[in-house]
Amino acid sequence: MGIDPGVANTGFGVVRVSGASLTAVDGGVIDVPAGPPLEMRLARIHSELAKLIAWHEPVAVAIEDLFFGKNVRSAVAVGQARGIAMLAAAQHEIPCFDYTPQAIKMAVCGHGSAAKRQVQQMVGTLLGLPRPPESDHAADALAVAICHAGYVRSNEAAEAALLSQVSVG
Amino acid sequence: MGIDPGVANTGFGVVRVSGASLTAVDGGVIDVPAGPPLEMRLARIHSELAKLIAWHEPVAVAIEDLFFGKNVRSAVAVGQARGIAMLAAAQHEIPCFDYTPQAIKMAVCGHGSAAKRQVQQMVGTLLGLPRPPESDHAADALAVAICHAGYVRSNEAAEAALLSQVSVG
Repeated sequence: MGIDPGVANTGFGVVRVSGASLTAVDGGVIDVPAGPPLEMRLARIHSELAKLIAWHEPVAVAIEDLFFGKNVRSAVAVGQARGIAMLAAAQHEIPCFDYTPQAIKMAVCGHGSAAKRQVQQMVGTLLGLPRPPESDHAADALAVAICHAGYVRSNEAAEAALLSQVSVG
Repeated sequence: MGIDPGVANTGFGVVRVSGASLTAVDGGVIDVPAGPPLEMRLARIHSELAKLIAWHEPVAVAIEDLFFGKNVRSAVAVGQARGIAMLAAAQHEIPCFDYTPQAIKMAVCGHGSAAKRQVQQMVGTLLGLPRPPESDHAADALAVAICHAGYVRSNEAAEAALLSQVSVG
């Protein structure tokens, strides 16, 4: 499960991995309109994410790592939503993984400086969706899930290679 | 209840207000050593704060507002701990209040550019403690609680003045 945390809009995306194939299981945005006090908005994000995590029981939660170019105020705001997302995962004993925006773009588009639109399109293509996700928050969340799936796969391949070396040796 | 959020050390301080007198009820630091994954550390902060909030049943939670001069990475880290603290308050239906470092120093020391040590000393004096709090995280948390108490008191005074004006008018 990938999460793109934000106080106003938190994207989520659930990807099933079987062998080399990736399927989108769920994806969308938790919209928390401005108005209620911040702590109530954070509580809303927490309870929605907790429900999604309980429903999908993901083996891992992947979250985009921090965002250079943001100012300190928006970094604190994103950090707040990010902390809530990590807490929801930890309370279900699901490990969290961080990926930089560059790593995510590299995994999805093949280069680290792809445009937002290109990420959206490639997410659609890689998951075999009839069209790219409309929300870029949902697309970003699916992208970080795809990135994590690639990371796990290459780790498994490296371990398998190591094992076959050991048995040959 | 004041909270000074941080991923490694979260300070807390509980102040009882009766009339013009302030008393320290509790204060300390939640230490979360490095080592476990970040999400588990955040879960630890959340469960400790939730216990403290349930025990003390504060009428409000006050948290220091954001921290200019920090870089984006540390702002995200503080934001994460801050989000957790606000969530713990919201889950107990306790409203949160933000104060800038300047407002807190002004409330405790009488000017907005007081040194950390001076805050620690004045917190001890204002709360009638035998000596200043040893931990500066606990002192900062007590300071933001004192700042909120002053804010509530001046609001009440303003309302009382308004009411007496109305009844005279």
